[in-house]
Amino acid sequence: MGLATFEATANIAVAKYWGKRDEKLILPKEGSLSFTMDDQLKTRTSVLFSPALKEDEFWLNGKKMDMADKDTAERLQQIEIIRQKAGIKDKAKIVSLNCFPTAAGFASSAAGLAALACAASKAAGLDLSTEELSILARLGSGSACRSVLGGFVEWKKGIKPDGSDSYAEQIAPASRWPELRNVIAIGDSGKKKVSSRAGMKQTVATSALYPARLAYMPKLITDMKAAVAAKDFAKFGELTMRESSNMHAVMLDTWPPIMYLNDVSKRIIYAVHDYNAAAGGIVAAYTFDAGPNAHVYTTEERVPALRKMLSEIEGVEKTMVCKVGEGPKQLKEGHLLSPDGTVLKHRFDEASGKIIIE
Amino acid sequence: MGLATFEATANIAVAKYWGKRDEKLILPKEGSLSFTMDDQLKTRTSVLFSPALKEDEFWLNGKKMDMADKDTAERLQQIEIIRQKAGIKDKAKIVSLNCFPTAAGFASSAAGLAALACAASKAAGLDLSTEELSILARLGSGSACRSVLGGFVEWKKGIKPDGSDSYAEQIAPASRWPELRNVIAIGDSGKKKVSSRAGMKQTVATSALYPARLAYMPKLITDMKAAVAAKDFAKFGELTMRESSNMHAVMLDTWPPIMYLNDVSKRIIYAVHDYNAAAGGIVAAYTFDAGPNAHVYTTEERVPALRKMLSEIEGVEKTMVCKVGEGPKQLKEGHLLSPDGTVLKHRFDEASGKIIIE
Repeated sequence: MGLATFEATANIAVAKYWGKRDEKLILPKEGSLSFTMDDQLKTRTSVLFSPALKEDEFWLNGKKMDMADKDTAERLQQIEIIRQKAGIKDKAKIVSLNCFPTAAGFASSAAGLAALACAASKAAGLDLSTEELSILARLGSGSACRSVLGGFVEWKKGIKPDGSDSYAEQIAPASRWPELRNVIAIGDSGKKKVSSRAGMKQTVATSALYPARLAYMPKLITDMKAAVAAKDFAKFGELTMRESSNMHAVMLDTWPPIMYLNDVSKRIIYAVHDYNAAAGGIVAAYTFDAGPNAHVYTTEERVPALRKMLSEIEGVEKTMVCKVGEGPKQLKEGHLLSPDGTVLKHRFDEASGKIIIE
Repeated sequence: MGLATFEATANIAVAKYWGKRDEKLILPKEGSLSFTMDDQLKTRTSVLFSPALKEDEFWLNGKKMDMADKDTAERLQQIEIIRQKAGIKDKAKIVSLNCFPTAAGFASSAAGLAALACAASKAAGLDLSTEELSILARLGSGSACRSVLGGFVEWKKGIKPDGSDSYAEQIAPASRWPELRNVIAIGDSGKKKVSSRAGMKQTVATSALYPARLAYMPKLITDMKAAVAAKDFAKFGELTMRESSNMHAVMLDTWPPIMYLNDVSKRIIYAVHDYNAAAGGIVAAYTFDAGPNAHVYTTEERVPALRKMLSEIEGVEKTMVCKVGEGPKQLKEGHLLSPDGTVLKHRFDEASGKIIIE
């Protein structure tokens, strides 16, 4: 094989991952649930394994990264595992491009690490199961393990110390609930004060409330899966909003406190409650990750009114609407590097949503 | 007696009251700790019991209140109990004036209900213990039970269904830690979205994290009392800040969420952490109640620098500095009504800090 290119997309959790039981293997304290998004929030990654390469190289968004950087090395630990699985010693050249709205503060690591697992394993000549791909992606970024699948996805926490049973499974394909939408309200994308990785570690170590979060999650996951299976939006929405607040509550209870919600988030929260009250039931449900954007799940017919409402909130800079996506896909053309290892000049053209390769 | 006038002051909790086990008797789920403030945050209350009065009357800040209002009636339930204790049937006239900075969003009910308990019982000819006064004040507003005492005060939760063991005790007089200060950063005083009374009821009913808060509080109270006894500011400060965040976390985890912290609060929180980092240890400690103001405990020598730092934060409108206060005091003059039941014309002159009676 040698060269392979995949695209994978972000996922937005409704039962959230916040806390590891193993830092090195990235094993979570509890399971989580998410919807994989469509390709408006995607990463394209090309990987080449070749005996002609002298060292591993990683290019992200057109820039060559420092492989000696600890964070970069941790994120790429799957490459060595793939070499072992494939029985090869070739060095790898990885070229990855995040195709997300500019400066909108989206977490791109899930899409990026999922695309890397797919592309690198294929480039190494492996044909892995989604479980194996999910585990590889997890080693780079926990929530990435959910982006190797489309639709409604569960990351099973697993119980084995080696993490071999901690991977994602598809609970329902995107077609199960085709009218589901995620209206994203993009706000101030000032740099986060605390990285997720450092933040969740602090929460586990210091929050007096965190054990109660862990105790509540198994039932949340069971109830959320039942609500999605029944396409019961009111139930799904209430669980989604309560879960978002629960996670941000344990973040706040962390020492020192971690605070991602701001006045814009508060206005969105109040506005969604008002919107639901006016609708006579829960028809829209916010969820906030460790970043500045609000994700408001709703159904297709509500999108125009909800989008208008959200776009009028002070501090909301723009909105976009995502569908649930199908998961990673392999590309036969549009590689970001050539088989001889040359990095092709490439960029994401936000206006057209296309990647331009020269 | 007939007529009595008392002043009582606000208290600012460091181990906070959030949640009742009995709504009618206002019995808390857990104990709490506070410092009573000096008379910059005071209420003056005059009470007359007289056979000449035809009905109970309550004047607050110069306005006659509607005694049929449910909230007013609940807050004044101690008057009937005082009549029973005193064996009298006279109607009462109550005149109360809050002497707080204008529109600064301070909760005045603790000072008001404590002053009422002291003035009404004295006016009825009773000479009650602080335990009895504390219980009377508690029936009007839970945290008021702590304002019948000065210094560092504990509200013991008690275990009896009738609430007879749920009252405040002084743990240390104001003189125990004379250099302690509360630098108050006054911010936007937009009306609260949810009253404390309704909010804490929702938290008890809906928060998945709340049981963990209750489990953590007994040790917090023990540790906080030890830190104050040792005048160990670093320990006291850390416990104070963590406790504030813990309470606001369970508020956020309430359904629907209760959010008092805003972007100004966040800036203050970060600034205090930065200030402590620069000082090489914890020398200032924020605590936030169900309102817009930040209370930053520190010691006397830190006040000028801390006050300057806080006053420069965007959204902080003004600052003030309180000492720990001595508790309620009876006034021999300055009554807000005359023995014949005439309400005297009175107002709080904020510039001089004095009450003007014409």
